[in-house]
Amino acid sequence: MTSAEQAREVIRWCRQLAKLSEDRAVTTRTFLSRPMRDVHTALAAWMARTGMTVRVDAIGNLRGVYPPVLSPTPVASAPRFFIGSHLDTVPNAGAFDGVLGVVLAIALVEMLGDKRFPFAIEIVGFSDEEGVRFSSPFLGSRALAGSFDQALLDRTDESGKTLRDAIRAFGLEPNRIPDAQAAANALGYVEFHIEQGPVLDNLNLPLAVVDVISGQSRADVTFAGMAGHAGTTPMKMRKDALACAAAWITEVEREALTTSGLVATVGRIEVEPGAGNVVPGRATVSLDVRHPADSMRKTSADRLRRAAEEIATRRGLTVTCEPRLDQPSVAMAPSIAAMLDRAVERAGSPAHRMSSGAGHDAMVLAGRMPVGMLFLRCAGGISHHPAESVREDDVAAALEAGLMFLDELAQTHHG
Amino acid sequence: MTSAEQAREVIRWCRQLAKLSEDRAVTTRTFLSRPMRDVHTALAAWMARTGMTVRVDAIGNLRGVYPPVLSPTPVASAPRFFIGSHLDTVPNAGAFDGVLGVVLAIALVEMLGDKRFPFAIEIVGFSDEEGVRFSSPFLGSRALAGSFDQALLDRTDESGKTLRDAIRAFGLEPNRIPDAQAAANALGYVEFHIEQGPVLDNLNLPLAVVDVISGQSRADVTFAGMAGHAGTTPMKMRKDALACAAAWITEVEREALTTSGLVATVGRIEVEPGAGNVVPGRATVSLDVRHPADSMRKTSADRLRRAAEEIATRRGLTVTCEPRLDQPSVAMAPSIAAMLDRAVERAGSPAHRMSSGAGHDAMVLAGRMPVGMLFLRCAGGISHHPAESVREDDVAAALEAGLMFLDELAQTHHG
Repeated sequence: MTSAEQAREVIRWCRQLAKLSEDRAVTTRTFLSRPMRDVHTALAAWMARTGMTVRVDAIGNLRGVYPPVLSPTPVASAPRFFIGSHLDTVPNAGAFDGVLGVVLAIALVEMLGDKRFPFAIEIVGFSDEEGVRFSSPFLGSRALAGSFDQALLDRTDESGKTLRDAIRAFGLEPNRIPDAQAAANALGYVEFHIEQGPVLDNLNLPLAVVDVISGQSRADVTFAGMAGHAGTTPMKMRKDALACAAAWITEVEREALTTSGLVATVGRIEVEPGAGNVVPGRATVSLDVRHPADSMRKTSADRLRRAAEEIATRRGLTVTCEPRLDQPSVAMAPSIAAMLDRAVERAGSPAHRMSSGAGHDAMVLAGRMPVGMLFLRCAGGISHHPAESVREDDVAAALEAGLMFLDELAQTHHG
Repeated sequence: MTSAEQAREVIRWCRQLAKLSEDRAVTTRTFLSRPMRDVHTALAAWMARTGMTVRVDAIGNLRGVYPPVLSPTPVASAPRFFIGSHLDTVPNAGAFDGVLGVVLAIALVEMLGDKRFPFAIEIVGFSDEEGVRFSSPFLGSRALAGSFDQALLDRTDESGKTLRDAIRAFGLEPNRIPDAQAAANALGYVEFHIEQGPVLDNLNLPLAVVDVISGQSRADVTFAGMAGHAGTTPMKMRKDALACAAAWITEVEREALTTSGLVATVGRIEVEPGAGNVVPGRATVSLDVRHPADSMRKTSADRLRRAAEEIATRRGLTVTCEPRLDQPSVAMAPSIAAMLDRAVERAGSPAHRMSSGAGHDAMVLAGRMPVGMLFLRCAGGISHHPAESVREDDVAAALEAGLMFLDELAQTHHG
């Protein structure tokens, strides 16, 4: 089968799996939901056909092991290279975020025919990356990385069910989660994922090698002024919390536009009392700041906090800033990134490096083994939306790059 | 009784009436609610003690007639001067908005002793000015002005009850609403009302004569951009609807700060999708623009609409502007305002003129008869809030001004 034909299959698979949903009309598939089992069934059958040994681990990750070249050592103790991504989705999702990386990995192994390597290949379909059901992301990759916090088992979903009970209800044993972690001889992890941004589409490039996953600062910022009657409060006597927040939001945008590599977003705003004829007395906004370099991110986040104080003080308001997240950036392993660069070029596409502004399972696994990521262009950067798409020729390019990568990895491992 | 003693009584009455509420903890008294009947009962008894003939008209206005000097003509056909305000409140109200004007009017008549004028005085406690229950304000004053639209009777409250049925349930006959209108020989209307703004408190003045009630332009403005991932969408590729709205909100504020007499408010904002890690794709904001001069108001409202288009276009977004209200300003009768000026001065307070940024029953009655308004200072401009307050000496000043006003009115009517 050519890579073009296989790419068509990959896209067909993704579109089919998108129908396995908690919602009849749209794609929504959260952690250990009923359609997740259907996805497991479908993919496990395909994995088995390609010669993999398949299991579902205690956190609900689907795992298929493609054995190494025949050797005296048993498969279980052979060195192992992981390829994977996640099988869960956001509500009203597209067909490719996460799932593509798993389907593409299986298709890649299928393309190997009977070719074996001096290491096993384990494909992982993570049970949770989006964190929708238990408001805690990366449940699947944390288990593989050995960084799963047992306290998470007491978290509850919207229906009040604990994570522990959800795992049991799926037929799994939460006490076995420690067994899900990768063995010490893990060689590394590579993840294929759509970019979820517009950069590659704008550059007209099919693929990019990720060199770093940006760190994130998040905070809630509340401006407190004084509510007043919109008709009877003269402008100069107002302490308008929304006008104050608006002045700061333009400052957030200016900071990001003038700082290379920085993205800063106010995505949420709530105003009290929130009536058209009342001057707002309180405005709470979210702040999300990301940069590949942690020092740059922190400098900008601090500057924005100070700007909020200055703007509020100048207007006679007060401001409080509630930090919500301070997550450092995570570098991909330079050796894997360099191998991915060469693989992309050998496969006939231009090598391109970029940072990831979104978190991924690779970020969690980086604490356990060398990791790398390959981004595929998605049209218009549209993601987390039914219109999410990938191009067949981009998937073919990724498959070819995957083959090149495994070949070089095999040589490296030999040598 | 001195005006100081009577002022204390007025405040005591207002505080007592504030306990007649639909809510045990706070003051909420909407159109024809059960506590409205208790207010009627209490005030009607007081009115009767001062020599008034009391009735409740078909829209639920409490009306007491203080007869003119004895004359061969029956009271019903004597010329009549109206004094009033509204008895309904917003939810979680203060004790003075509206009610003060009715209580103060009764107290004023009480202070007359047995003094009579060549005209009857009719005190009106309007049943609805705030429009809370049927989302339509001025039900009471519209009936008195003869501008009550019968179609309103089909409006429903939150429980689905029509205005017609609410009137019947209160023991009134909706078909008799036309009988509520003032006769042709109405001499005029004066309303005492708290300022509901901070101007008098800032000027350290007790009273102000209103010369005009500002007109209002209201609209909903929607900026449509493109939602995107907060981590993966570079700043220069964004069409952030909130950032765009924020730029416009600062422009709204700038326009009002640089246009004398203008107030402009964005009191409501809704952002979609409204998550901290998603660039907003859509933002809808309210606009409320007021000015005593209609031409100034319209010029500013137009300028702000154009600014919205310019800002949106510059950023690659689109904007739609949905007009919600275009209400002209209403001038108070110059003769009544001049008489109020003199009455305030004779009562020992400085004469001060101001416009009203809020609508009042006087605005509706202006279509039927000459009207005037006297504002009383309220601390900090706080209104529509339990902390709403008036000072005893300001109420005393208003009572004295009221006496002076009636005296001059009597002379004018004689002459």
